[in-house]
Amino acid sequence: MKSFRKIIEINHPKKYGIIRITDEVEKAVKESGIKEGLCLVNSMHVTSSVFINDNEFGLHQDLLDWLENLAPYSPSKYRHNRTGEDNADAHLKRSILGREVVIAVTNGKLDFGPWEEIFYGEFDGQRVKRVLIKLIGE
Amino acid sequence: MKSFRKIIEINHPKKYGIIRITDEVEKAVKESGIKEGLCLVNSMHVTSSVFINDNEFGLHQDLLDWLENLAPYSPSKYRHNRTGEDNADAHLKRSILGREVVIAVTNGKLDFGPWEEIFYGEFDGQRVKRVLIKLIGE
Amino acid sequence: MKSFRKIIEINHPKKYGIIRITDEVEKAVKESGIKEGLCLVNSMHVTSSVFINDNEFGLHQDLLDWLENLAPYSPSKYRHNRTGEDNADAHLKRSILGREVVIAVTNGKLDFGPWEEIFYGEFDGQRVKRVLIKLIGE
Repeated sequence: MKSFRKIIEINHPKKYGIIRITDEVEKAVKESGIKEGLCLVNSMHVTSSVFINDNEFGLHQDLLDWLENLAPYSPSKYRHNRTGEDNADAHLKRSILGREVVIAVTNGKLDFGPWEEIFYGEFDGQRVKRVLIKLIGE
Repeated sequence: MKSFRKIIEINHPKKYGIIRITDEVEKAVKESGIKEGLCLVNSMHVTSSVFINDNEFGLHQDLLDWLENLAPYSPSKYRHNRTGEDNADAHLKRSILGREVVIAVTNGKLDFGPWEEIFYGEFDGQRVKRVLIKLIGE
Repeated sequence: MKSFRKIIEINHPKKYGIIRITDEVEKAVKESGIKEGLCLVNSMHVTSSVFINDNEFGLHQDLLDWLENLAPYSPSKYRHNRTGEDNADAHLKRSILGREVVIAVTNGKLDFGPWEEIFYGEFDGQRVKRVLIKLIGE
């Protein structure tokens, strides 16, 4: 069994945003030399997400608007605010899109359907954050 | 280490629906010959989900009604509509139920609690779609 | 390839609550002897979640209040009620926080960012429930 680990650093210029990371993950799969296995990709932070959806800009705006509607930025309404944190909404938004994805690796490639792309969802940006890629297989 | 890959094809007669796929996944585990490992089951499409919940019809209706309430079908309200797509709601609904499940395989079987069953959630049906099953283990 | 399986039993004194289980999972990783691999942690029940977020009590209250708002306890409004079950809300709440997490194991430890902690989210408690930990790796 082989394993492989790699970190991607992301510094999003805005508080909220969605960034495509498919190429970075495909590169890691290639570097790993793993032909058959599983690839975990997760945010190492609790205010951001890694998820799979469509690579369409309008949809990304829809996702951000929808998350804002379901879990609005409104520090005074959250108890997390009492610790001096104004980012409770980010913790909730990330709960919807999820922390991680697990992707099959087949014949040395991400085993994807036609429209699957990997994204990093940032809900408390303007600082350096990290995404972990971990592969196991053969 | 062994690995195993299998595709299930699903063509749901309606736009929205929930289909039980536990038996197909159990069959794949048996075919794989893997006794101890992990089993990934994911939708290969960005408008549908694979998830684990209770096999009860009333609850499935509750799930669909609830998702419609949280992410209504209403093409004109979404920016994704500008590309000619009317299925933005499907991309959002799938974000709640999730793309994938990872299940432990123990003694050659899905290592489930008493009520766990695997479902495919369709939010843009009436066409052939695919679910990927990938196992690794020994 | 090695594999390891362990069950944690949880009996939450209230219907709803969030319990930190990071230490139990770290202990299982140590017991497994696995240095490089993947660790699956999942609820074996369909009315509770395993998820990763911040270990801050105010935020946990925010999470529970937010879930109650998105999927209220209100048996008569759900069709699941017809089977005599009053816990439809628990099945919906669990759908948002998710059933499982998959965590990288690196150098024999959970490969976490600075604030990542593992929690069990109970939405239908006051009975014994189980969390499954399954590791594979080397």
